[in-house]
Amino acid sequence: MPLDETARGVYVIAPTPFHADGRIDEASTDRMTDAFLEAGCDGMTILGVMGEAPKLDQAEALDLSKRIIRRAARANVIVGVTAPGFAAMRALARGVMEAGAAGVMIAPPPSLRTDDAVAAYFRQAVEAIGEDIPWVLQDYPQLFQVQMTPGIIRRIIAECPSCVMLKHEDWPGLEKISALRGFQAEGSMRRISILCGNGGIFLDFEMERGADGAMTGYAFPDMLVDLVRLSAAGERDAAHDLFDAHLPLIRYELQPGIGLAVRKHVLRRRGIIASDAQRKPGSALSAKAVQEVEYLLARVGRHDPRARLAPL
Amino acid sequence: MPLDETARGVYVIAPTPFHADGRIDEASTDRMTDAFLEAGCDGMTILGVMGEAPKLDQAEALDLSKRIIRRAARANVIVGVTAPGFAAMRALARGVMEAGAAGVMIAPPPSLRTDDAVAAYFRQAVEAIGEDIPWVLQDYPQLFQVQMTPGIIRRIIAECPSCVMLKHEDWPGLEKISALRGFQAEGSMRRISILCGNGGIFLDFEMERGADGAMTGYAFPDMLVDLVRLSAAGERDAAHDLFDAHLPLIRYELQPGIGLAVRKHVLRRRGIIASDAQRKPGSALSAKAVQEVEYLLARVGRHDPRARLAPL
Amino acid sequence: MPLDETARGVYVIAPTPFHADGRIDEASTDRMTDAFLEAGCDGMTILGVMGEAPKLDQAEALDLSKRIIRRAARANVIVGVTAPGFAAMRALARGVMEAGAAGVMIAPPPSLRTDDAVAAYFRQAVEAIGEDIPWVLQDYPQLFQVQMTPGIIRRIIAECPSCVMLKHEDWPGLEKISALRGFQAEGSMRRISILCGNGGIFLDFEMERGADGAMTGYAFPDMLVDLVRLSAAGERDAAHDLFDAHLPLIRYELQPGIGLAVRKHVLRRRGIIASDAQRKPGSALSAKAVQEVEYLLARVGRHDPRARLAPL
Amino acid sequence: MPLDETARGVYVIAPTPFHADGRIDEASTDRMTDAFLEAGCDGMTILGVMGEAPKLDQAEALDLSKRIIRRAARANVIVGVTAPGFAAMRALARGVMEAGAAGVMIAPPPSLRTDDAVAAYFRQAVEAIGEDIPWVLQDYPQLFQVQMTPGIIRRIIAECPSCVMLKHEDWPGLEKISALRGFQAEGSMRRISILCGNGGIFLDFEMERGADGAMTGYAFPDMLVDLVRLSAAGERDAAHDLFDAHLPLIRYELQPGIGLAVRKHVLRRRGIIASDAQRKPGSALSAKAVQEVEYLLARVGRHDPRARLAPL
Repeated sequence: MPLDETARGVYVIAPTPFHADGRIDEASTDRMTDAFLEAGCDGMTILGVMGEAPKLDQAEALDLSKRIIRRAARANVIVGVTAPGFAAMRALARGVMEAGAAGVMIAPPPSLRTDDAVAAYFRQAVEAIGEDIPWVLQDYPQLFQVQMTPGIIRRIIAECPSCVMLKHEDWPGLEKISALRGFQAEGSMRRISILCGNGGIFLDFEMERGADGAMTGYAFPDMLVDLVRLSAAGERDAAHDLFDAHLPLIRYELQPGIGLAVRKHVLRRRGIIASDAQRKPGSALSAKAVQEVEYLLARVGRHDPRARLAPL
Repeated sequence: MPLDETARGVYVIAPTPFHADGRIDEASTDRMTDAFLEAGCDGMTILGVMGEAPKLDQAEALDLSKRIIRRAARANVIVGVTAPGFAAMRALARGVMEAGAAGVMIAPPPSLRTDDAVAAYFRQAVEAIGEDIPWVLQDYPQLFQVQMTPGIIRRIIAECPSCVMLKHEDWPGLEKISALRGFQAEGSMRRISILCGNGGIFLDFEMERGADGAMTGYAFPDMLVDLVRLSAAGERDAAHDLFDAHLPLIRYELQPGIGLAVRKHVLRRRGIIASDAQRKPGSALSAKAVQEVEYLLARVGRHDPRARLAPL
Repeated sequence: MPLDETARGVYVIAPTPFHADGRIDEASTDRMTDAFLEAGCDGMTILGVMGEAPKLDQAEALDLSKRIIRRAARANVIVGVTAPGFAAMRALARGVMEAGAAGVMIAPPPSLRTDDAVAAYFRQAVEAIGEDIPWVLQDYPQLFQVQMTPGIIRRIIAECPSCVMLKHEDWPGLEKISALRGFQAEGSMRRISILCGNGGIFLDFEMERGADGAMTGYAFPDMLVDLVRLSAAGERDAAHDLFDAHLPLIRYELQPGIGLAVRKHVLRRRGIIASDAQRKPGSALSAKAVQEVEYLLARVGRHDPRARLAPL
Repeated sequence: MPLDETARGVYVIAPTPFHADGRIDEASTDRMTDAFLEAGCDGMTILGVMGEAPKLDQAEALDLSKRIIRRAARANVIVGVTAPGFAAMRALARGVMEAGAAGVMIAPPPSLRTDDAVAAYFRQAVEAIGEDIPWVLQDYPQLFQVQMTPGIIRRIIAECPSCVMLKHEDWPGLEKISALRGFQAEGSMRRISILCGNGGIFLDFEMERGADGAMTGYAFPDMLVDLVRLSAAGERDAAHDLFDAHLPLIRYELQPGIGLAVRKHVLRRRGIIASDAQRKPGSALSAKAVQEVEYLLARVGRHDPRARLAPL
C-alpha cells in the first residue's frame, strides 16, 4: 500500500546486517525483518543513515531493498534514496517502488542555504523521481546541517503534493511539531504524518505535541510500539513510566559516532542479528562500553522483562 | 586559591541573572552564588556559554566577575575568557585574576582546523594572558566545531604547563576520558583535572571512566554534588538510581537553543533567581513547555524531595 | 555628514597599523588617513575584517576610531561594529557616532540559518544600536557563512529603514547586483548604495552591473578611484585596461589568510605605513612571496607609474 | 601507462557534455577528447567536480569513462572516484582501471576533522580500492572543507605508497608547494607529482614554486600547455605575459556556482562541445553574463589568436 498522510505508529529504522567480512548477511536480514514486524512495528525504513546506506553500491542497495520488501509483505517499507545526485536518486527510487516499496525518504544535501535553495532542491528531487512516488521529508539539521523553519516545511509541502510525511528529528523540536499542527488547525497546511527520530529521546513529549509515532532505530522497537500506543490512549503516566525506564539506554544509544555500534550490539544480544559488524569506516565498542551496556540492560530489565537477556 | 590539577567535585556553570529589562540583577546574582555554595559546589564557572557572556560588554563582564568572586569568598571561581581576539581575552583574564579568580577557561575559535592550528592557538593564548594564570581547556566540538583527539589534548597539555583542567564535553566522550587517563597511567601525560559538561547527561558513566566531577549548569547542582560523592565512594547503584530519577529533566534541559530557558525557569521556580529573562537574542519557553517542565519536576519529586516545589 | 543611500565612489577598507611590538602605530594611522584621502577616496571604512578589529579591545577600538574620524575631517568614516553580542555592538556604535562617524557596518554571525533568523538578527541589531544610526549591511558569505538571496536583502532593507548601503562581497555576485537594481527599477525595493568588496576582483563588471563604487582594501586605492571614475563615465575599454594591468596583483592580494600581509607590505613599500606587523594570530610573507610581490609591482609599473617603487 | 610520480604537464579537467534533455552527448565527448589531446594536453581527468560526477549514476559513470579512455588511447586518463562510501568507490575504481585508466583521484569527505581522521580515511580508501591502483590526492579545502597541512600530506604519502600525485588546490597554496618540495629536498618525503587546480588562477607562480603542471578545466587548455612549457623553460616574462592576457577570463571562470556554465559556454563557442547544458541542479548564464564573456574573449583575442572566435 502506498504511504500516505494517515500513517501512524512505529516505522523502525533498520540497520543493515553484515557478516564480519563485510558481506550483507541475508539470514540476519530476514530474521530482523520478522522480529521487527512481530514486535508490532507498522513499517520499516531502510537505507537510512543508520542503515549504512552510503556504504552499499547501487546494486546492493536495490537487492537489499527487494529482499526486505518481499519479506515484510504485509508491512510498509520506506527506502532512503538520498544521494549526491538526482540520477542515482531516481534509479533507486523507481527500482524500489517497482519492487513494492511504500515510499521513499529524502534528506537535503548539507550545502543548501537560504529558504529558496531548500525549496528548489525538493521540487527538483520530485521532478527527478517522479510525482507519483510518495515521499518522506527528513528534517535532521544536526546531521545534514540544513535548518528548516516550520514555514519552509509548509512551503515544501505546498509545492510538493507527493510529500506525505515528515521524519522529524530537529532538536529541539517540540515547538516545531506544535507549529506544524497549528498550521494544519488554522488551515494553512494540509495534514501530513509526523514520525519522530533522534533515537526516540523526546518521543514521550513528541507524542503529546501531536506526532503520529516514531521512526527511529532504538534497539527495543517493541517498547516504542507500547509507548506510542499508551500515549495515543492518553495513558500519560504509564507512557512516561515506560519511557523513563528505557531512557538511560536510549540516551546511551544516541551518542553520535558509536550509536550504531550500541544498537547492533543490543540487537545481537537479543538474537535478532548474528553480528554487530559494520562496513568501514565503522565504529566499535570498547570492552568498557560493552560492560556499560550490559549494566544498563540489567537496570532496564528491572522494569521491562524484554531487557532481561541471558548473560554474555 | 589558584586552580590546579587536583581540583575535584562540582563547579557549577552559572547563568547571568538579568532583570526583565536586560540589566544585570545583582540581588539574584548574590542569592544564586550563596545557593550554589550551600548546595555543596566546590566552585563556580561564570561567563561561559550558558552565562550569556558574549552579550555583556567588557566592563559588565569584569564587574559581574568581581561581584561573584567577592561573594563566593571561600570557593573557587573560574571565569570564561574566550574572546574573538587576544587583547580582550588578556584584559579580562588579568582583571579577574587580580580580583581573586581561581583560573580562567578558554575555548577554541570555530575556524580552527588541523592539529597544528589548534595547538598553536592555545600557545598564543597562553602567551597573551600570561603563563602564570591557570586555565581550563574547553573541549566542546558540538558548539565550537573544533575536534580534538586525545593526542591533540595531550600535546596542548605538554606545550602549555599552565593548563590544569579539561572541561570535557565532547560527545561521545567516554572513550576520550579513558584514553586521557590511560596516557596518564602510562606516563605520557601529566595529570589534569577532568570535569564534565554536556548538561551532565553522561555524568553517571563519566565518573566511572575517571572524571573528577562535573562542570555544568543543571538546575539541581545539589544533585550533581550527591552523584559525584556517591560515585567517588563506589556506590554505583545508588549513584545511577539518583541519576536516572533526574535524567528525564536533564535530557529536557540539554535541548540546544532552549536549554538555558529551561534552566533559568527551574532556578526561578526554586527561588534562586528572580527572573528567567535573557538578553537578546534569547529563547523563551512556551506555555506548553512550562507545563512539561512542571510535569517533569513532579515526577523527579517522587524520588528527590528537592524537586518538590510549591505549585505555580 | 551621515551616510545615506546616495553614497558613491571609493570607501577604502583601512588596515590598522601596528608597531612591531603590537601597539597601535598612531603616526602611521595619521599618514595612512591622509594618503587615502589624497588618493581621492570618498570615505574610509575602519575596524573591518582587514582592520584586525577583533584583536583590539573595546577601548582601543574606540580610541582608534576617534583618531581617524578627527583626522579624516572632510571624509566619511564608516566603522565596523560587528560583535558577538549586542551590548558591545551598541557601545561601540554609539561611541563612534558621537565622535562623528558617518555610519556603521554590521555582518551577520556565522551561526545564522534560515531567512527568518537572518532578518530577525538585523532587526534586533538595529533595536540595539538605535534606529538613528545609518548602517551598512555586509554580505560576505565566503567568510561569514551566511547566504542572503536578493529576496532576503530586500526584506532586510524593508524592515530596517536605517540600512542605507550594501557592502557587496558575495561571490559570484554580478547577478545579485543586477537583481537588486531590478527590484529598485520595478519599485519593490527602495534605492540603497552598493559598494563592492572582495578585493576588487570583479569591480570592472560590478560597476557595469549597477554598483556605486568600491569598498575594499586593495593597496592602490588611487587606482580604484580612477576605475570607478572611468566606469561611471562610460569609458569601458579604458576602465578594463587599467583594471587588467592591476589584476595580477589584485588576485595575489585576495589570497585568504595572507591577503592582509600582502596589503600591509605594499602599503609599507609605498611609504604609507611604517611596519607591516600584525597582531597575533597573524600572517607573514615568506622571502619568496616578497619577491613575487616585487615582481608583480614591477609588471604593474609598466602600465601604471604609481606602482613604480624604489627598489627594496 | 599507469600514472606515477614523474607525471608532468597539463591534465585537463574535462566536463561531461550533455544534450539539452540531460542525456550524455557522446559525439561531443569524442570531439572534446580529440580537441584536448590536439591542444597538447598530457592527460585528462574526468568525473571530477567539474565533470558533474555525482549527477551520473554508476553505470553511466563507468560507460563514460570507458568511452573516453578508449578514445584518448595515447594519453593518460585519471578518473575521479570520490564517493560517499567505499563500496561504490571500489566498484568504479576497479572498473575504470580494467578499462585502461592511468589512475584515480580521491577527495576527502567534508566531515573529516583532526589529522588522524584524515590519514585514517585515505588508508581505508586504499585498502578498499586495492594497493595496486595509483591515485591522486585532491586537496581542495574551499570545496571539501578539509584542511591538510604539508605535514598531514607527507604523512598520507608515507602511509600510502600508491599515492603518486597531489592535485593542489588549496588557497592560498604557494607556500604549501614550497613546503612539500622542501620536504623532498631534505629527504623527509618521497617525490610526488604536483599538478595545480583552482582554475589556474595561480599557475604562473605555482610553476615557479615547483609544481609539475596543471590539472584544471580552464576553457583554453592549449594556453595552459604553453604556459607550463614557457615556465618550465625558464621564460618567466613570456609566461607571465601569456598568463596575464588570459587572467581576466580565468578569473571570470573561477566564480563558484557559475564557473562551469562559463566553461561549457566557451567550449561551445570554440566548437568543442555542442551544448552547454548541465544536469540539474545546474547553473546558467544570464544574457548579461554571456555578453561579459564575449567582451572578455575579444580582449583576450587581442593577445592570443585562439580567443578570436566567430561572432555569436
